[in-house]
Amino acid sequence: MNPNSNCRNYLNHISIDCVIFGFHHNSLQVLLLKWKSINRWALPGGFIKKNEHADAAAQRVLKERTRLSNIYLSQFHTFSDPDRNKTNDATDISLLPVRLSKETIDWIRGRFVTIGYYALVDFNNAKPVPDMFSEECRWWELEQLPILLYDHNHIVDTALLALRDALQYQPMGKYVMPKKFTLPELQKLYETILGHKIDRRNYRKKILSLNIIHPLGETRKGGAHKSPELYSFN
Amino acid sequence: MNPNSNCRNYLNHISIDCVIFGFHHNSLQVLLLKWKSINRWALPGGFIKKNEHADAAAQRVLKERTRLSNIYLSQFHTFSDPDRNKTNDATDISLLPVRLSKETIDWIRGRFVTIGYYALVDFNNAKPVPDMFSEECRWWELEQLPILLYDHNHIVDTALLALRDALQYQPMGKYVMPKKFTLPELQKLYETILGHKIDRRNYRKKILSLNIIHPLGETRKGGAHKSPELYSFN
Repeated sequence: MNPNSNCRNYLNHISIDCVIFGFHHNSLQVLLLKWKSINRWALPGGFIKKNEHADAAAQRVLKERTRLSNIYLSQFHTFSDPDRNKTNDATDISLLPVRLSKETIDWIRGRFVTIGYYALVDFNNAKPVPDMFSEECRWWELEQLPILLYDHNHIVDTALLALRDALQYQPMGKYVMPKKFTLPELQKLYETILGHKIDRRNYRKKILSLNIIHPLGETRKGGAHKSPELYSFN
Repeated sequence: MNPNSNCRNYLNHISIDCVIFGFHHNSLQVLLLKWKSINRWALPGGFIKKNEHADAAAQRVLKERTRLSNIYLSQFHTFSDPDRNKTNDATDISLLPVRLSKETIDWIRGRFVTIGYYALVDFNNAKPVPDMFSEECRWWELEQLPILLYDHNHIVDTALLALRDALQYQPMGKYVMPKKFTLPELQKLYETILGHKIDRRNYRKKILSLNIIHPLGETRKGGAHKSPELYSFN
């Protein structure tokens, strides 16, 4: 939605929210927006156009917020608690310094069932861009998220559980890891998603047996310790 | 929705659809409704009241269609193809012999994003009941489903994939198996959900090692062959 949008172009009562994961400084990061005038962070989200698939709406939001296309995107849960986006003074959209018609404000203040998507993006190529409701868009470490707007902390937690399940079947790491990485770096990603430490030797044996990564025959220069070997996804 | 319902009591553009699984005659069954005057079967479904959680709406629909409460219910995917419920002559709701206001007919003919739930119920205790749009409600063998209304075949296929994933983590069998069952009967359930044959001896070893079922010390009488041992879920 932008200042020229009319709420009549969108489906009423249905929104999408995107949990965008990136990997940086050996930790999982989530992209958040800071709402204008309100000291509150929120997930990137949006509405579904009258003739648009929800998946396409999510890709559109992701592109607007990160400038990236063809992102790995997965719908994981739809949130429908009738009170999930009840407004209070602190989060009332009518207090935001955004020029919106009364009709649109009333529309946004209604009840919304939201379809949750998670995305895995390349941290280094994403260019965070705020939307019309926000003054800042930036990455936060997953383990240090602030209290978010509405039920957005619950949405992030649920996304993480879905990502954890998906990790059992798919080499998700390839969407967020840099082109070249060390085994300890990939292990850190798995540990963050799984929420617990993994034994280094078992991990090494298992990840190599899956045949999803290969050694590059290079090492990383400049470290204080023994130069670690670099790998890449197949 | 019943003939006295007003569409204004429900959220616009959002519906729920339920894939209700039961187990009978050694095969997985799905509960379907036959639309009045139209030779077309459909999934049980409904709408979400203005102040209702989608999960509660799904429980309500399940109770209305099966007379069962506290059913095992899982939201698995939301379907949002803009063309998914485009009406044509054969499936036009206005042709059904149901007294509805023009407002309600127009409302139902609009675009609906539908939240899919699957349920596992006890076949023998469920009492199939048609809704206002249907003249018949009965079980169909999963492997012999007819062509369904809208995108309902796709919804069933997606539910089955979700059930398959869930089976890896949870002893889902307890919701659909009779109180007493033989190992080959439980194996048949797993084979139907997984979509392939399982080696009998490996299956036996694995299911017993999970410690989710126990032998009852009884056998089933009356069969032509050696009486098979009966088991029950813990």
